[in-house]
Amino acid sequence: MNNSFGTRITLTLFGESHGPEIGCVVDGLRPGLRVDEDFIAHRLSLRRPGGPGSSARVEKDPFRIVSGVWQGRTTGTPLCILIPNTEARSGDYVNLKNIPRPGHADYAGSVKYKGFADPRGGGHFSGRLTAPLVAAGAIFLAALRERGIRIGTHIARCAGIADRSFGELAADLDALEGAAFPVLDETRGEEMKAAVLAAAREGDSVGGVLETAVLGLPAGLGAPWFDTVEGLLAHALFSVPAVKGVEFGDGFALSELRGSEANDAFRMDEGRIVTKTNHNGGINGGLTNGMPLIFRTAIKPTPSIAASQRTLDLSTGGQTELRITGRHDPCIAPRARAVQDAVTAHVLLDLLESV
Amino acid sequence: MNNSFGTRITLTLFGESHGPEIGCVVDGLRPGLRVDEDFIAHRLSLRRPGGPGSSARVEKDPFRIVSGVWQGRTTGTPLCILIPNTEARSGDYVNLKNIPRPGHADYAGSVKYKGFADPRGGGHFSGRLTAPLVAAGAIFLAALRERGIRIGTHIARCAGIADRSFGELAADLDALEGAAFPVLDETRGEEMKAAVLAAAREGDSVGGVLETAVLGLPAGLGAPWFDTVEGLLAHALFSVPAVKGVEFGDGFALSELRGSEANDAFRMDEGRIVTKTNHNGGINGGLTNGMPLIFRTAIKPTPSIAASQRTLDLSTGGQTELRITGRHDPCIAPRARAVQDAVTAHVLLDLLESV
Amino acid sequence: MNNSFGTRITLTLFGESHGPEIGCVVDGLRPGLRVDEDFIAHRLSLRRPGGPGSSARVEKDPFRIVSGVWQGRTTGTPLCILIPNTEARSGDYVNLKNIPRPGHADYAGSVKYKGFADPRGGGHFSGRLTAPLVAAGAIFLAALRERGIRIGTHIARCAGIADRSFGELAADLDALEGAAFPVLDETRGEEMKAAVLAAAREGDSVGGVLETAVLGLPAGLGAPWFDTVEGLLAHALFSVPAVKGVEFGDGFALSELRGSEANDAFRMDEGRIVTKTNHNGGINGGLTNGMPLIFRTAIKPTPSIAASQRTLDLSTGGQTELRITGRHDPCIAPRARAVQDAVTAHVLLDLLESV
Amino acid sequence: MNNSFGTRITLTLFGESHGPEIGCVVDGLRPGLRVDEDFIAHRLSLRRPGGPGSSARVEKDPFRIVSGVWQGRTTGTPLCILIPNTEARSGDYVNLKNIPRPGHADYAGSVKYKGFADPRGGGHFSGRLTAPLVAAGAIFLAALRERGIRIGTHIARCAGIADRSFGELAADLDALEGAAFPVLDETRGEEMKAAVLAAAREGDSVGGVLETAVLGLPAGLGAPWFDTVEGLLAHALFSVPAVKGVEFGDGFALSELRGSEANDAFRMDEGRIVTKTNHNGGINGGLTNGMPLIFRTAIKPTPSIAASQRTLDLSTGGQTELRITGRHDPCIAPRARAVQDAVTAHVLLDLLESV
Repeated sequence: MNNSFGTRITLTLFGESHGPEIGCVVDGLRPGLRVDEDFIAHRLSLRRPGGPGSSARVEKDPFRIVSGVWQGRTTGTPLCILIPNTEARSGDYVNLKNIPRPGHADYAGSVKYKGFADPRGGGHFSGRLTAPLVAAGAIFLAALRERGIRIGTHIARCAGIADRSFGELAADLDALEGAAFPVLDETRGEEMKAAVLAAAREGDSVGGVLETAVLGLPAGLGAPWFDTVEGLLAHALFSVPAVKGVEFGDGFALSELRGSEANDAFRMDEGRIVTKTNHNGGINGGLTNGMPLIFRTAIKPTPSIAASQRTLDLSTGGQTELRITGRHDPCIAPRARAVQDAVTAHVLLDLLESV
Repeated sequence: MNNSFGTRITLTLFGESHGPEIGCVVDGLRPGLRVDEDFIAHRLSLRRPGGPGSSARVEKDPFRIVSGVWQGRTTGTPLCILIPNTEARSGDYVNLKNIPRPGHADYAGSVKYKGFADPRGGGHFSGRLTAPLVAAGAIFLAALRERGIRIGTHIARCAGIADRSFGELAADLDALEGAAFPVLDETRGEEMKAAVLAAAREGDSVGGVLETAVLGLPAGLGAPWFDTVEGLLAHALFSVPAVKGVEFGDGFALSELRGSEANDAFRMDEGRIVTKTNHNGGINGGLTNGMPLIFRTAIKPTPSIAASQRTLDLSTGGQTELRITGRHDPCIAPRARAVQDAVTAHVLLDLLESV
Repeated sequence: MNNSFGTRITLTLFGESHGPEIGCVVDGLRPGLRVDEDFIAHRLSLRRPGGPGSSARVEKDPFRIVSGVWQGRTTGTPLCILIPNTEARSGDYVNLKNIPRPGHADYAGSVKYKGFADPRGGGHFSGRLTAPLVAAGAIFLAALRERGIRIGTHIARCAGIADRSFGELAADLDALEGAAFPVLDETRGEEMKAAVLAAAREGDSVGGVLETAVLGLPAGLGAPWFDTVEGLLAHALFSVPAVKGVEFGDGFALSELRGSEANDAFRMDEGRIVTKTNHNGGINGGLTNGMPLIFRTAIKPTPSIAASQRTLDLSTGGQTELRITGRHDPCIAPRARAVQDAVTAHVLLDLLESV
Repeated sequence: MNNSFGTRITLTLFGESHGPEIGCVVDGLRPGLRVDEDFIAHRLSLRRPGGPGSSARVEKDPFRIVSGVWQGRTTGTPLCILIPNTEARSGDYVNLKNIPRPGHADYAGSVKYKGFADPRGGGHFSGRLTAPLVAAGAIFLAALRERGIRIGTHIARCAGIADRSFGELAADLDALEGAAFPVLDETRGEEMKAAVLAAAREGDSVGGVLETAVLGLPAGLGAPWFDTVEGLLAHALFSVPAVKGVEFGDGFALSELRGSEANDAFRMDEGRIVTKTNHNGGINGGLTNGMPLIFRTAIKPTPSIAASQRTLDLSTGGQTELRITGRHDPCIAPRARAVQDAVTAHVLLDLLESV
């Protein structure tokens, strides 16, 4: 299927960047889960523009839940969330119809959809579509929290600057939940912001690496073929715009170790089976092993930049100069963090419900 | 679903490392595709042990196709491939039942399957299960070749030694098809082999990075949500044992560039729309853009090592010393290459059939 | 999955009878299909109450398409249709929460949803949910019409009165498209209406049999296992409230024939392969054979009746008397016909797109 | 998907009537279920030819389970059952390649599979494929029995002769489990056998109606859209060759009742909520209501008959005379009963595991 994801808990996404409304349908939630609209609004606020040099568009995201909730709790029937597109300015984009923006899906999408797609603001490809994901994600995060499972994401790298690594996880996740700019070391965060602003001033953009930790997962989730925890998470994460790599535990660095270094030795810790190290990021053979789940995504620099770019005019086949005039984030990593949490929560809740 | 993958062309995998037979069912193939048993045998030979210091087990893989083929061509009904397990020696493993091997799924699997799984040789988790994948992959690769699409994988890194990068792709893919040790620079290949043997002599193992290129894909395959080309490939690739990371195009390195560097500018080349660079690995917004598809996987070092390891005895809860006596590859990257080709061919043929 | 149906063209249904909005998401439509809002309104009018003695509720169904359509054509991205619930009167139902209505899902639903379902008006079980199905069905019917495929349904039996059988199909389908009360013999239709009104006056309800014919299908659609044309249609049709039986061709009567009578002999007709008779309803071995597809559904009498009924009070466990005061159709067959067309169109378009 | 069925417990079927082996893969079974090979053999014996005038072919069905079972219990990994085709005589069929048998899928299949299907013995369409279904069904039936759920099917009608209706269900199901010719009234059974033999002597065949009862199901299984219990069962049942109708409870007869007659009134019975009557066959609104599940299938007369038939020679387009010389059952209802039990068990176990 195309625009749905999940086995027990399916999420179906719909809408275009500049259409009247975007939204999603979440099916398979247990009846009786509390739905806290304030928490949804909080999570949406973490996705909202407003970081350093970020898009000046005001996205208020006044969501409505039109089904699947009764008296503040899930009914067990499909839950539909709608978010109106109140402030889109189509004029910013419409002249781009025949001029594919480098690094964007414009050209590939015109082939797939044979020229019939809504061209305004990236249409269905727009990062705007992550807003309903984040809203639904708030419900997933709350359901996981009730089971003692917590998720948090920080900007591990941005513009060449590294945040400190995860340390005492419970405290780190607490700190990240409230942080508008999600780093573990605020000094490094200030350096990142400065670097992002510097790039923005040059009409350019930067990328980053987002690292997520999950605490409290039981062992035995996932499957050897083909629904490994890694595979399911990666499948979902790669649909977040700008993600170009996903690695678990030490990931690519693990491929440089020897087996004697990479193997995480089992031991007992107060009656629980744990591993001494966690090079494998909490996953063995595609299954959770009870250790914290750790993974990272590579976020490419925002393709929409103010600086002039060379591209094609598809109507003539000739080269042309493109200057993108809309407002765009010079780095989407800070906002993408809320999406990464949401997508992670969806996959993990789905796995827990599939046991 | 657990042990099936694919939307139009589904592959269902079954079997245990030391059971009587392993195999797979492939459903959704077009009627009339030629099935060349010699080519299947060739692809299986690329997966077979025999590289430097590799497992001494002789895996002959005398496969049988018991359905779905009539007079040398696919019928359009499910194709079942069976491979007997003729030479497994269960004695090597059976004493490990309560002693989880570090880096393996033994512990996580015992939780998931509640102690009922076949413990011999990793059971259903075994890398042995990739043999039917490779056999089916030969059929997928041949079907893609008929459409002008070619796939090849080399060992981009192994034991700290880097192969050269892909150059003239058509020639590089030709060279890889016949290579027993798949590198582009044979001198580097010899260095890799020496390093692998050195690790093996120390009772240790090494990992590597496998890089795949695909030539001839049309633009417009994939979807923005959630079946991106990246997401589908990663989903499948992470079920290959030992894969801990997947990145497309420049991947993690892309996150260090600026947008002005990372964006691949469109231009015309003899009437075809191409990009000047290919930092995005042939994918924009989750869709193929007509450029070569390029990705890399991180292969962790083989967890089965000869050197003694500390682990738990689950029957007592106490620490114990483990010495794995079976025969194991000190580096699975050379063999995993055939699996990576097969999995890639499955995903891409499935995408082509979904248009 | 629960609330989704379809392989290539999936329809996901959401909403509760008395929630703010109900709707559906249709995914997998080709880009470029014309979307005619007048035709959608026409099909919705066929589902609207207003037949003999039918519910006096005015259901205007002012639908909105909020995604997936651009400049009057499908974009190829998910199409979401929303229908507000403007005139529901919750007071009619709310006192029934602990008093399950006989013949309804109230009791079974309270077990499934653990008491958290929206109890108003049947919630997610309500026949109201068929409105978005009919709206989406209009798009499917139009897409089939472009391929030369036509669908029509008549009331074959109602309150013991039989309509005439299908005759010259093209003319019969023309007549049914415009008919508010869908019968082939208007005299019989008048008798049916009178019988329905007579039952209504007694506080009772009646059922019927709906028969559908489809003209223009190619041979070879469907599959032997398990997605037979019969199986897929029946799967979808049984979710239409009140359907309790589905039969193809001569159906149950076929089981009374001998093989020599039941087999439809092949012959040529102006270069086309046809059968002399059509006892098998256009399907052999689960596949279409190019003859008209013919099937019938058994529609049970509306369970909501004005007459007093005995039931349980779940809060006390004691017997109680129930008098349903809302407005209800004494026979839903006339309205269900629009739903049957819609569901049939969905399944067939999905099959055509799966070839 | 084509040849797979089930959501949590998927069954994938493969093989051709005259290929080397047929079989199925069952995925999603819980680990630890006992697998009793004698019970599988017993259930296969119920499907075996040998009834009145039935096919003289000896089908021994010496099945092997090649994966998913370890020490007599399910492992939780995919279970593959293989059945060799030892006694097929291809010569009986091969001359039919261009001469489609009336009532069979030969013509429709040749369109779908473009002429590449294995033509011997109906290939993948053959009723022979129900053998692995029955073998897997034995495992499902045993798993249901452990949960207190029992399934039984009798020949409700055959050649115009009616068996008595279900009475005291527990005793009736006991009697059916052991019966080679599954009727509740043996006198009627003898009459049926005589009628079947009479038809066979005339080179003809007869059909019948199979009625199934299920005892012990909890309330609340199923879903309103689209996975109703009726819809799921019908989907699976229509893939059993020869089934042309499915009805639940009173089915088509229910459509002749008034609402006041059709509604099953709720009452308490020793602390359990039950209904006085069971016109709805244990299902309300698509969900089980805790009453016995009752349904019937229409089985058409075997299309393979000895008497001469008129058909086309596709190679010339001209009419020809066809005389089918293989051995065929003059009535498949007695054998189809084992298949109906198996398919029912699959759907119900899947529903129970989906809660």
